[in-house]
Amino acid sequence: MDSNADHFAAIEAGGTKFRVAVARGRDVIADTTIPTTSPDETIGAAIDFIRGVGPVRSVGIASFGPLDLDPSSSSYGSITATPKPYWSGTPLLSRVRDALGVPTKIDIDVGGAALGEWRWGAAVGLSSFVYLTVGTGIGGGVLIDDRVHHGLGHPEMGHIALERIEGDDYAGGCPFHGACLEGMAAGPEIESRWGLPAGELADRPEVWELEAIYLAQALRTYTYTLAPQRIVIGGGVMQQPGLLELVREKVTEQLGGYVTSETLLGDLSEYVVAPVFGQDAGLMGAIALAMDARSEGPR
Amino acid sequence: MDSNADHFAAIEAGGTKFRVAVARGRDVIADTTIPTTSPDETIGAAIDFIRGVGPVRSVGIASFGPLDLDPSSSSYGSITATPKPYWSGTPLLSRVRDALGVPTKIDIDVGGAALGEWRWGAAVGLSSFVYLTVGTGIGGGVLIDDRVHHGLGHPEMGHIALERIEGDDYAGGCPFHGACLEGMAAGPEIESRWGLPAGELADRPEVWELEAIYLAQALRTYTYTLAPQRIVIGGGVMQQPGLLELVREKVTEQLGGYVTSETLLGDLSEYVVAPVFGQDAGLMGAIALAMDARSEGPR
Repeated sequence: MDSNADHFAAIEAGGTKFRVAVARGRDVIADTTIPTTSPDETIGAAIDFIRGVGPVRSVGIASFGPLDLDPSSSSYGSITATPKPYWSGTPLLSRVRDALGVPTKIDIDVGGAALGEWRWGAAVGLSSFVYLTVGTGIGGGVLIDDRVHHGLGHPEMGHIALERIEGDDYAGGCPFHGACLEGMAAGPEIESRWGLPAGELADRPEVWELEAIYLAQALRTYTYTLAPQRIVIGGGVMQQPGLLELVREKVTEQLGGYVTSETLLGDLSEYVVAPVFGQDAGLMGAIALAMDARSEGPR
Repeated sequence: MDSNADHFAAIEAGGTKFRVAVARGRDVIADTTIPTTSPDETIGAAIDFIRGVGPVRSVGIASFGPLDLDPSSSSYGSITATPKPYWSGTPLLSRVRDALGVPTKIDIDVGGAALGEWRWGAAVGLSSFVYLTVGTGIGGGVLIDDRVHHGLGHPEMGHIALERIEGDDYAGGCPFHGACLEGMAAGPEIESRWGLPAGELADRPEVWELEAIYLAQALRTYTYTLAPQRIVIGGGVMQQPGLLELVREKVTEQLGGYVTSETLLGDLSEYVVAPVFGQDAGLMGAIALAMDARSEGPR
């Protein structure tokens, strides 16, 4: 066994930047950030960086989507139809695997983040939970029975239906669904709705009251649909002080006492929680994916 | 091995009646219906009926809820807090198991129905799907990776948030959530909204247009949350001619082309389907549960 048998490469492939790291175990020993330009340029730079650090045992990729995650598909591990120029059809998994010649595993960014929080973070030991990120978009990963759940494609948890709050006449900004969760509650919608960047609205309680109600509606819907043991909720919007606590209160109101577990009758401080890894959840997830790629052996 | 080694008892425990059957394999050879009165009387009659038919290998119970389905709980298999008089705290599983002395398995009614449709009906061979019933209430079961999914308690799929259709001023009849899916689209709400029993509204297209949109919103939410390979939708309301086809059309509109699988871009005739067992889905599910109890051995 060579000296780098416990070195893993991790790629968090985002729409604006790639974060690339090499870790010993789960500890990052080298990392870089690469702007997302063309697939050739960006993936090439990621591969060069990893090679420059030295041999790795395996690679994990947590990528923006949509991704083809059907193992029986000829385009498994490729980015499918995306509005992002140049990237539709990019075979991200096979490019990396073929260049580095080691086992490589890919998942959607939020699926990777869920895996990282489950292995080392806010969901250790649970058999089911939801990871939700509320930022420039809203997305989520679902872990059930020790696996990231995919099904037909993968979840797109930001695009569920919401009940409009009386008096709120904001049309909703989702190009596909108008007033879905993402269209009503993602960061850019807060700015569109109130006419100021979210950072300048920090001391306007009505802003966060409305935001908390919509997020709580979504958490109620996930609760009734998936019955998760916990919901981990992070992302840029959740950095607003007090918002997490307000969301918990609103979830209790939304459930209205109709629950199938006494856990949901308390203050929800163990049910609705912040991620441990914050903005590093995706990168930690990619490290976890790399470790899983190793244990599954080469393919 | 005695001559009844392939005989299984099945109990579909409903809020108004219990259906009880003995099956050879999956074929019912004797069955009865018992009104749901008190636990002693109704469960006692079910046990007497099964004993009267002869020895069985095991028993399956698909029951109304909420149920305690946490295997580590001291009240596992009991009905928890229900508004139904006399039934809160009834240890349904242990009463039946102790009386008959054979392995017994319990699940929520819709979970059992999902299992039956997965084993022999409309979802054979799938690794994930949703079973939804739209009748006097709305409920659903989720099957993931060959198992009925529970998590924290179990799903209550009728109580998700919906987006109110413009011009619809019906308040919604759910005592917990007002205008949730069940509060807007269950059978009794159709009658409350339009002032006539659903049976007398069959030729009023506006009734079914609205119903189809709300159901389609829910199916969109399940699609984005669970990414199931199929949604099986039945129940009394779905007997309205043409409603299933209309729901498919509305689901396509609701998704707005935003999908992670090409399966969702077609006419959805393989994605949104009727159950095979119709009103027998719960009883078939109880037979399937009995078979699983057998394979897991006595407990």
